[in-house]
Formats: sequence, C-alpha cells, structure tokens
Amino acid sequence: MKKTIAIAATLSALGSPVAAEGIIISENSSRKSMLASKEQFTGTVFVEPMFDANEQNGHSTGLVTFTPGARTAWHSHPRGQLLIITEGAGWVQEDGAEKRNVKAGDVVWFAPGIRHWHGATDTTLMRHIALSYMENGTNVAWSDQVTDEQFLD
Amino acid sequence: MKKTIAIAATLSALGSPVAAEGIIISENSSRKSMLASKEQFTGTVFVEPMFDANEQNGHSTGLVTFTPGARTAWHSHPRGQLLIITEGAGWVQEDGAEKRNVKAGDVVWFAPGIRHWHGATDTTLMRHIALSYMENGTNVAWSDQVTDEQFLD
Repeated sequence: MKKTIAIAATLSALGSPVAAEGIIISENSSRKSMLASKEQFTGTVFVEPMFDANEQNGHSTGLVTFTPGARTAWHSHPRGQLLIITEGAGWVQEDGAEKRNVKAGDVVWFAPGIRHWHGATDTTLMRHIALSYMENGTNVAWSDQVTDEQFLD
Repeated sequence: MKKTIAIAATLSALGSPVAAEGIIISENSSRKSMLASKEQFTGTVFVEPMFDANEQNGHSTGLVTFTPGARTAWHSHPRGQLLIITEGAGWVQEDGAEKRNVKAGDVVWFAPGIRHWHGATDTTLMRHIALSYMENGTNVAWSDQVTDEQFLD
C-alpha cells in the first residue's frame, strides 16, 4: 500500500499519464525544462527533472544545461552526487583544489560533504545528467555564488 | 579508512588514473566497451561500465548499446532499475503485459522483482544508461532468453 502511494506520487510529480504495473515510463516529450534559480546558479541554466527519487533508487534524476559562462553556486551533497556529462565541455572544482575539465561521456563523482561547483566553461555549453542522493529528505546544501574571478581562475 | 579502500577499489576497477580528494572523474576515453554475454543477451550488444557502485550511490552505472534485433534475456532486479534512453528507439516488456515503445530521452523504471526484458526494435538501434540498484551484493537475476516470437509479438 505504501509503495502504491509512492508510485502515484511520482507519477503525479512528473505529470505522467502512464501507470503500468511494474514499468513506469517518463516520456521525454512529457517533461518540462525550467530556468534555474538565480540564487543557486550564475548565468543561464536550464533544469529538467527526469525522474523523482523513490524508496528503491534513493536519488533524484535531472538534466541540467549550462550555457557558456554559467555555473552552480558553491554547494555540497550530504550523500554525494554522480554527474554523467552528455554534451559539451565544462569545469568542476573542489574548494581548495585545481579546476578540472570534463567533457561529454565523462562521469564525475562528488563525495559526500565536499564543497564544490560545476558548470560550463567560459566559451562552451555543458549538459549533464545529475543523480543526487537523498539523505534525511534533502540532497544538496547551497552556499555562496562562484565569482567571475573564481570561475576564470 | 573504509571509505578510502572503497574509493581505491572503484578506481582500480575503472582503471582510472585520477585520484583527487573529493572528486573522481571517469573519463569517457578511459573506459572499455565489451560484447555482452550470449547467455544473457540475444544479438549484438555492447556493454560499457561507466561507474561502480559505492557505499553512497548503491548502484552500478553502465552504457548498453543494442543493435537492431538485440535484447536482454528475461530478468528481474531485486531493488529495481532505472534506464535513461540516450539514443535510438527500442522496446520494453513486462511479463504478461504489452510490449511498449521507448525512445531517446525517455526514462524507464522497472520495479523490484518484475520479470521483464528490454532491447532494440527489430529495425532500430537503442542505447541506454542503466542504473541497477544493489541488494545483498547483486542487482540482477537472469532467466531464459526472449524468443524471436516473443520479441516480435
């Protein structure tokens, strides 16, 4: 009974019309991209929720598109995050370490609790799938913005 | 100490030379595609492990390419599986239900324990990222092959 409610809630959140017994399909065409909040991102970033966390998978799944120059604010994840870069090239940086290049096809693991940011480069778009693992009902802790100086350093 | 060993094991399995403190990058160019076993797949299927399960994420991450006509055997996942279709078009089917179409951009959730298969169509390639959730050290239970009659039905 609990599982039925959880699945119904997932379907509701995705606005999906599909409700098979054991298979749920979130169709690409049924989802919505939204502009990311200017409080947590710099520049123009689109966020598309792909699939909600459920009891078994334990993570949200989203598609994030960073236009050139755009990036997240500094942040951390209580249970970590996995990025699958699907298009373009971008930068990731852990606080106190060197900025690093990532490109389409790369997979990036951010360990729990580390302060970091990720985004496009100054000249290229970067798109990634983000798997953000839930802990006690949350999967991210936001901090201050990445300044232009930090971004270009 | 336990975490350090887990991360080292992950790096070892991926053959990755990168060992930053809090960020692990699996580069696209560092990974290997392998032909999938004929015992668990029909037709020509390539499997590329993208990232190993760790204590926080709890799932393997792999890229699977089904050439036209290729498909998994019937199987189930003890804790479910999430597919992100990245290219082409394919079919998925739960035992006892109708075969369903999936295409690039769709996300597919298979609930724990349901008997099903997934693959290309008879004429198109299908590629997906597969997140397979671990339970007691395993994430799949294989069964018999999908016959041509079942595949084309």
